[in-house]
Amino acid sequence: MYRSHNCGELRVSNCGQKVKLSGWIQKSRDKGFMIWIDLRDRYGITQLILDSERSSAELIEKLRELGRETVIQVEGEVVERSAKNQNIPTGDIEIVVETVEVLNQAKLPPFTIEDQTDGGEELRMKYRYLDIRRNPVKKALMFRHQVSMMVRNYLSEQDFVEVETPYLIKSTPEGARDFVVPSRMNQGQFYALPQSPQTFKQLLMVGGLDRYFQIVKCFRDEDLRADRQPEFTQIDCEMSFVTQDDILQVFEGLTSYLIKEIHGVTTGAFPRMTYDEAMKRYGNDKPDIRFGMEFAELNSSAQHRDFGVFNSAELVVAIAVPGAVEYTRKQIDALIDWVKRPQVGAKGMVYVKCNEDGSYKSSVDKFYTQEDLAAWAEACGAQQGDLICVLSGDQKSTRTQMSALRMELAEQLNLRKADEFAPLWVVDFPLLELDEETGVYHAMHHPFTSPKEGQMELLDKDPASVRANAYDLVLNGNEIGGGSIRIHDKEVQKTMFKHLGFTEQEAQEQFGFLMNAFEYGAPPHGGIAFGLDRLVAILGGQESIRDFIAFPKNNAGRDVMIDAPAAVDAAQLEELGLNITNISADES
Amino acid sequence: MYRSHNCGELRVSNCGQKVKLSGWIQKSRDKGFMIWIDLRDRYGITQLILDSERSSAELIEKLRELGRETVIQVEGEVVERSAKNQNIPTGDIEIVVETVEVLNQAKLPPFTIEDQTDGGEELRMKYRYLDIRRNPVKKALMFRHQVSMMVRNYLSEQDFVEVETPYLIKSTPEGARDFVVPSRMNQGQFYALPQSPQTFKQLLMVGGLDRYFQIVKCFRDEDLRADRQPEFTQIDCEMSFVTQDDILQVFEGLTSYLIKEIHGVTTGAFPRMTYDEAMKRYGNDKPDIRFGMEFAELNSSAQHRDFGVFNSAELVVAIAVPGAVEYTRKQIDALIDWVKRPQVGAKGMVYVKCNEDGSYKSSVDKFYTQEDLAAWAEACGAQQGDLICVLSGDQKSTRTQMSALRMELAEQLNLRKADEFAPLWVVDFPLLELDEETGVYHAMHHPFTSPKEGQMELLDKDPASVRANAYDLVLNGNEIGGGSIRIHDKEVQKTMFKHLGFTEQEAQEQFGFLMNAFEYGAPPHGGIAFGLDRLVAILGGQESIRDFIAFPKNNAGRDVMIDAPAAVDAAQLEELGLNITNISADES
Repeated sequence: MYRSHNCGELRVSNCGQKVKLSGWIQKSRDKGFMIWIDLRDRYGITQLILDSERSSAELIEKLRELGRETVIQVEGEVVERSAKNQNIPTGDIEIVVETVEVLNQAKLPPFTIEDQTDGGEELRMKYRYLDIRRNPVKKALMFRHQVSMMVRNYLSEQDFVEVETPYLIKSTPEGARDFVVPSRMNQGQFYALPQSPQTFKQLLMVGGLDRYFQIVKCFRDEDLRADRQPEFTQIDCEMSFVTQDDILQVFEGLTSYLIKEIHGVTTGAFPRMTYDEAMKRYGNDKPDIRFGMEFAELNSSAQHRDFGVFNSAELVVAIAVPGAVEYTRKQIDALIDWVKRPQVGAKGMVYVKCNEDGSYKSSVDKFYTQEDLAAWAEACGAQQGDLICVLSGDQKSTRTQMSALRMELAEQLNLRKADEFAPLWVVDFPLLELDEETGVYHAMHHPFTSPKEGQMELLDKDPASVRANAYDLVLNGNEIGGGSIRIHDKEVQKTMFKHLGFTEQEAQEQFGFLMNAFEYGAPPHGGIAFGLDRLVAILGGQESIRDFIAFPKNNAGRDVMIDAPAAVDAAQLEELGLNITNISADES
Repeated sequence: MYRSHNCGELRVSNCGQKVKLSGWIQKSRDKGFMIWIDLRDRYGITQLILDSERSSAELIEKLRELGRETVIQVEGEVVERSAKNQNIPTGDIEIVVETVEVLNQAKLPPFTIEDQTDGGEELRMKYRYLDIRRNPVKKALMFRHQVSMMVRNYLSEQDFVEVETPYLIKSTPEGARDFVVPSRMNQGQFYALPQSPQTFKQLLMVGGLDRYFQIVKCFRDEDLRADRQPEFTQIDCEMSFVTQDDILQVFEGLTSYLIKEIHGVTTGAFPRMTYDEAMKRYGNDKPDIRFGMEFAELNSSAQHRDFGVFNSAELVVAIAVPGAVEYTRKQIDALIDWVKRPQVGAKGMVYVKCNEDGSYKSSVDKFYTQEDLAAWAEACGAQQGDLICVLSGDQKSTRTQMSALRMELAEQLNLRKADEFAPLWVVDFPLLELDEETGVYHAMHHPFTSPKEGQMELLDKDPASVRANAYDLVLNGNEIGGGSIRIHDKEVQKTMFKHLGFTEQEAQEQFGFLMNAFEYGAPPHGGIAFGLDRLVAILGGQESIRDFIAFPKNNAGRDVMIDAPAAVDAAQLEELGLNITNISADES
């Protein structure tokens, strides 16, 4: 037996007991005649004490030599501390050490094992096993477990059945790139790792399982952006005999439950907003509605004056920045520079100061009267003391730019509060999305999404106008879930594939099993999937998902700790019947 | 809204209510003036009724045309049945149908959707989504979910944290074959899919997580035997600061809990048996101890007579088959043929009938006296009325053969009762195992398993004799879990790799990250992994795992439903920098 108690549980009531503890040396203070050691394990920190009065000189000497992170086992008596530490639950007691055994030595860690560490990202990833000893990471992983358990128990209570779907499936060129797995037993053939269990969960509905969920790894071989991982986790759900509203109800319930359990915050009924409205009011299909600064379109009041920039613009749009009238020229210039950065791409920014005396001062005073500016202020709800920012240009880019500016200002003004939760359903997404490079339409959600009732005919005439039974759940400006009511009719699915540019043969080869299944009595069904990594991060009040993943990969898709991917044996390749074509292959 | 109730919940108390139900037509009986339909969903079956008195002729005509498995939605009134059906929970009521909507048509299924189906294995797999509609499969999947939830909640209550470890890791040639995943971003390099999260869970222990578990998919590219899947699920667990006994206690707790919750059966403390004892008493490291027929070694009493076969044997071993004295000559011959089959490989079998009158009749009467045979009977505990079976030969094969015979006889005598649960810990496994083909020792469990205290030195002198801190949990003759106390010291781990034939460089390249981690304060740790597929099958009283996996692969590793693996685009291979060497590659 290595321990009678863990390092987080001893209290004054344990005083007088002989205990055995095991853990890591967090730190020690050596006063010569007295040594204090903080012994750490997952559960907490317990103070050990050795002094010349109660401990042998030999023992003191032995402990003095032990460095941080050494793993030790101690026996001793629990005593009440004279100087209590209110900051930790074990702060009322300490252990007078009687025996010590070193269980394992520790080299000096490459960074400090403290809440605020001196280790950079890459170093922490290389020694992730040490990084996990740090409270923020350890707590993030435990929090993830807690959230997963809550999700599982909630859904299970609601008759959802967790079903494990296969990981070795078939590659389909549609959508993002698949990771493939060469088959040794069927040389020249490949499995693919699932981008999601989409078709399998639909088949489970055809199979009559009625309510399915799974917390499941998914894989996408994409060029990685920050905070994207080649493998990520989804809470994947599907229901039969449901309308969109049924699904929204159930998962609104789940999300409210999580927020309530974790933060004690009661969220009312989640607002719902169409995609079109979200784009119009926030320039974004995942608006953060914790704060205002809604878009006001100024075309009618700002055009047909002498200001050519606005006159030639497809859209003139403004937001009112609360209390920002005080911004100095320098601050405003910085904002203008910010929107002109290539990542944002605006050509410039017009501003109007709404002075406390009711007057307006703008960068376009020579083109607009006070009445004009007052109309702008009214349109965007600006109060005295606010700053109005105006962007113009083509509709799409201008909305995107203004959305970026709105988020940036919210950050600057600290309006994105981590302890505030503003969920929102965005509904009625477009069914199709035009790929501007190729001029081809593809499915905005995925090819199994059903169009709104009666809109199938529009597919030929005006594909961009077709709306889908598709919805996203947005939390604090992040898409945390998305789903749709699926097609459950073979002919409709075939038509959809045709419109997405599949030949009949391609559709049959890739998704024949699903369309065939639809012929044997497929129920109406739909579902949703949540990104667990992000959901947990947001519920944990963080923007970055990195600490909520035990062993994340870097932006090049590498695991720098185990050094993967790596070369494999020639024999292994031969067994798989594969050759590497490009020999200059060590670009890692 | 597609339904007000599901098909399993209506009772007499609902009579008079107007309800809406959706589901599949299980079957219909048409009496001309009256039609009964069994409407099925996941939750049960509800009887619908239409008759010429209460329903329109049009409605009757409409329903008459609908085939089995058609998906319909009906509205109607709940009424009490005159002829009640005690076999189903909704058997007291039926629905007088007022409206019907066909939600989806169904072609005639390729096999009957009944508990006993006429569909063969391959057909059922191809149409697995229909197979899942059948009660046995649907219930097996729901049972699996239930068991998984119980495991998660139990372990979570015990402070275990479920941590998701990565699926894209590094290939290591040790052990079974890895599935590999070519990296596009790092051409010529490969990820591997984990055979288990072994090294990651050990790193989590180094990271101080103390108690880890995960229900996780694992992958092995092996030539498949019946009931083996290339992807399978493990309940993977690891604990820090534990001895072997601590681990056995915790997982005995889990297993007892499952058996108790599922079957209401209280298992006492699980017996423990060393590997050596299990081999001696049962010829098997996973003995089914629900029944006796223990091995008795007869060398001392059977050798040094005139029977050359026994005299030249390394081992003469007997079991007493209860009540089998009645076996006819034909039955005994069949047994002898059975042990002589190439899959078993015995050269023959000697038998002794223990007659009810106390006399013995054997196939070797001319070599042995009644006293000799009485000694045999005593050795194997044979009673009057039993049949003694004796095999002989070299130790290893003879034990294996006798074990096979013992299991076969237990099947024949119906001694392997599905509702009886006999767990057993088998402990003190050998550390190493000689590969007889190559003459090389490899790790019996895996290279991270620690040898018994003080046995490191034996590694040089007598490797086969070294025992490990390794244990299996056996349930009803199946290994349901196995684990070990790990090595947590870098030098010990290095020595172990050396003994397993790794060069220092190979060990460093493949497992350097783990050995490095051990230098930064690794705690003593150990763990266990359960095979979930098998555990669930056994707890469900089945021998085959197939029905407990939603979408299993066949013995050639193929998913016959989606037809995977399959060829991929040339463009995809080019992106990966790969060539297929063997073009004659369509052996599927």
